Amino acid sequence: MRNREKAGTPGEGEQLRDEIVAGNGLMNRRALLRGALFSAGFAAAGAGVARADDPSGADAPEWMKTPGKPFSAYGTPSKWQEKVQRIFTIAPGRAGTGVSRTPLHLLEGTITPGGLHFERHHNGVPDIDPAHHELFIHGMVKRPLAFSVDALMRYPMETRIYFVECAGNSGTFNQPQPQQVTAGELNGLISCSEWTGVRLATLLDEAGVSKGGKWVIAEGADAAAMSRSIPVEKCMDDAMIALYQNGEAIRPEQGFPMRLLVPGFEGNMNVKWLRRLNVTDAPVDARDETSHYTELMPGGKARQFFFPMGAKSAILKPSFGMSMKGSGVYEISGLAWSGAGRVSKVEVSADGGKSWALAALTEPVLPKSLTRFRLPWHWNGSPSTLMSRATDEAGGTQPTRSDWVAQYAPGQGYHFNGIQGWSVDADGTVKNVYV
Amino acid sequence: MRNREKAGTPGEGEQLRDEIVAGNGLMNRRALLRGALFSAGFAAAGAGVARADDPSGADAPEWMKTPGKPFSAYGTPSKWQEKVQRIFTIAPGRAGTGVSRTPLHLLEGTITPGGLHFERHHNGVPDIDPAHHELFIHGMVKRPLAFSVDALMRYPMETRIYFVECAGNSGTFNQPQPQQVTAGELNGLISCSEWTGVRLATLLDEAGVSKGGKWVIAEGADAAAMSRSIPVEKCMDDAMIALYQNGEAIRPEQGFPMRLLVPGFEGNMNVKWLRRLNVTDAPVDARDETSHYTELMPGGKARQFFFPMGAKSAILKPSFGMSMKGSGVYEISGLAWSGAGRVSKVEVSADGGKSWALAALTEPVLPKSLTRFRLPWHWNGSPSTLMSRATDEAGGTQPTRSDWVAQYAPGQGYHFNGIQGWSVDADGTVKNVYV
Repeated sequence: MRNREKAGTPGEGEQLRDEIVAGNGLMNRRALLRGALFSAGFAAAGAGVARADDPSGADAPEWMKTPGKPFSAYGTPSKWQEKVQRIFTIAPGRAGTGVSRTPLHLLEGTITPGGLHFERHHNGVPDIDPAHHELFIHGMVKRPLAFSVDALMRYPMETRIYFVECAGNSGTFNQPQPQQVTAGELNGLISCSEWTGVRLATLLDEAGVSKGGKWVIAEGADAAAMSRSIPVEKCMDDAMIALYQNGEAIRPEQGFPMRLLVPGFEGNMNVKWLRRLNVTDAPVDARDETSHYTELMPGGKARQFFFPMGAKSAILKPSFGMSMKGSGVYEISGLAWSGAGRVSKVEVSADGGKSWALAALTEPVLPKSLTRFRLPWHWNGSPSTLMSRATDEAGGTQPTRSDWVAQYAPGQGYHFNGIQGWSVDADGTVKNVYV
Repeated sequence: MRNREKAGTPGEGEQLRDEIVAGNGLMNRRALLRGALFSAGFAAAGAGVARADDPSGADAPEWMKTPGKPFSAYGTPSKWQEKVQRIFTIAPGRAGTGVSRTPLHLLEGTITPGGLHFERHHNGVPDIDPAHHELFIHGMVKRPLAFSVDALMRYPMETRIYFVECAGNSGTFNQPQPQQVTAGELNGLISCSEWTGVRLATLLDEAGVSKGGKWVIAEGADAAAMSRSIPVEKCMDDAMIALYQNGEAIRPEQGFPMRLLVPGFEGNMNVKWLRRLNVTDAPVDARDETSHYTELMPGGKARQFFFPMGAKSAILKPSFGMSMKGSGVYEISGLAWSGAGRVSKVEVSADGGKSWALAALTEPVLPKSLTRFRLPWHWNGSPSTLMSRATDEAGGTQPTRSDWVAQYAPGQGYHFNGIQGWSVDADGTVKNVYV
């Protein structure tokens, strides 16, 4: 038997008080660097466990006693992680239209592994032979052009980290009652990858956009021929034909062999399996910018062509489905982002919005990319309400949920970026609450 | 039948001359932004192809005519990418000691997908039940501690992008003749991930390193009990207990459920399946720092404890196995890195080292991380020798191969960071050459 006791915590108390920066125990985001964590009772809450015996000896674990498994050509996650999957709202194995979500609450950092990038398909995932795929640029251009995958590989490339967020992400916050589901189920229609590809401006320059060419109609090579109209200014700015995702060829579910990236714009416009770009003088009013992806406004009108995703954040640790293990210091951690550029700050509240503290942002903070925020919290064990609020470099920030809802007709679920909240009960249970 | 011709290239010639910055056609790294690519004959070399007919009509590809494939719980690469695998020098499926390499020449960007991270195992990949794994900190500490995976999850975390490079990477450059193999086979014992975990200093602070504690002996829970001695200064600086890799739980081949990261130090020291950290007053002279991972010097001596990986670079496009398709503008692209910090510049030569041009570095340039470099090159179709040379922010740079070899006894293959070269023949064939 091993001899274990909880580690002692000398010096608790005084330094803790010095590090509290907002109501209900929120600590200075730099408290860790000043060593305040342990004097604040972190170890006492049950992390490191004191150990008297020598671990070097005879009781080595079984997996040290037999040779391990062989090398593999393409690795996969541990079998112990089999529950870390994309989250379906339709039955897995069904094709057609639907979504699967990234399990944000089970992940860390900012990059989404390719296998867990969210999916939004309108008629399944086409199986495209890259040797027989072409990208066409036509319409109001001086020289209509066709590009094979091999031809695009010849072009100068760029590598940039961007999120893609479905316009419908977090749409259930339009429901009258908060849904008691995980943060991934609530907010998992966003993922973030390192993309590499050819700047669209390079190709449009080669084709030569004619005078009067104001829109680019992007069409996918899926069975839905998913199409969206994109302003030519965006195409000439930071849009990219992405060929690689997190270092390897783009995954089938994200558009193999190529997708359009319009950074910060709603996900649907980042057309996957990109087949053609038709330069026009007006938007095409495609199905997915008329029957879908419009915002229903009060009075029966619909707002069309509202592209950028707003400043937004979500606390992932703690979140629904997790349980706090008694009072003590915890790290609050989550993700923030904005389609307008860099996140400039994330504020966290532990008292339902009465007071706020600045969270630490993981460097580098990149434009139109996921930003991880973290803040130490000394939870005193009493019921609490956690909230987060992101602000971007353009000055955009998150409205309250009620202010967000009030802008629209009932049932409008696109572009939700209201402030979200979690309640923590005295027994450590975490629930979704409207704040 | 489609009507195709190569696009015309008006304006070629004059602007091209203005953009040449070094011998044998190396162009200004910003030439693309000034539109010089097309006037320089890029399109004429066979990229975009002119197209007269309307692509919107009847000849849609077959994959647009049937519903696509269903959603999936955990995605995998396209079947058309099945050759993009780790590169084995021993038979796949064999356990024990050995390596598999990242196919760098088939990838882009800077992040290595988890499935293609290089492997170096000393007795296979242990199958560790995370519920029964503990990390011990013991030896010269005030309070010996044990941490379960769940306990570590409670600690404040950090997210940082780092490369891990095996000390033996590129070791075959010590051979008398250049090996005619791919860039991945030559240099693929390096990979780069976004790692998230607990700063080791946090845990050592909690345990309290005793006076005289100068080294930390890290031991893995594999059947080799892989062990290395690490200076305590490094452990208190930027070392991390990594729990996540590219957003998800660390992969089995990279140390699930946790590994030590000592950024910039040779890969072997980043002990996988980390089981214990024994604080001592002297290095332990473990098998893998005596029989391996020492540098054989002239005169029969061996240099031990030479930790940081030097400034280094490799051109990946073009590289062995690829073929240039006639004269014209190409992008030269590759990776650079240094264990000392950020890459400050990468110079490229197309004339065997007689002249050099500065490559563009993909932002953000992060310390101890892979940095992608790119440079446009107008190849005139004659035999050429390409080289790259990285310099880091500490002033470290790459020696010539012959200067590097001259430092050591024959057969020493660790820490190779000499300048590498590719020859391009008139027929476009690319070969490994010593420069």
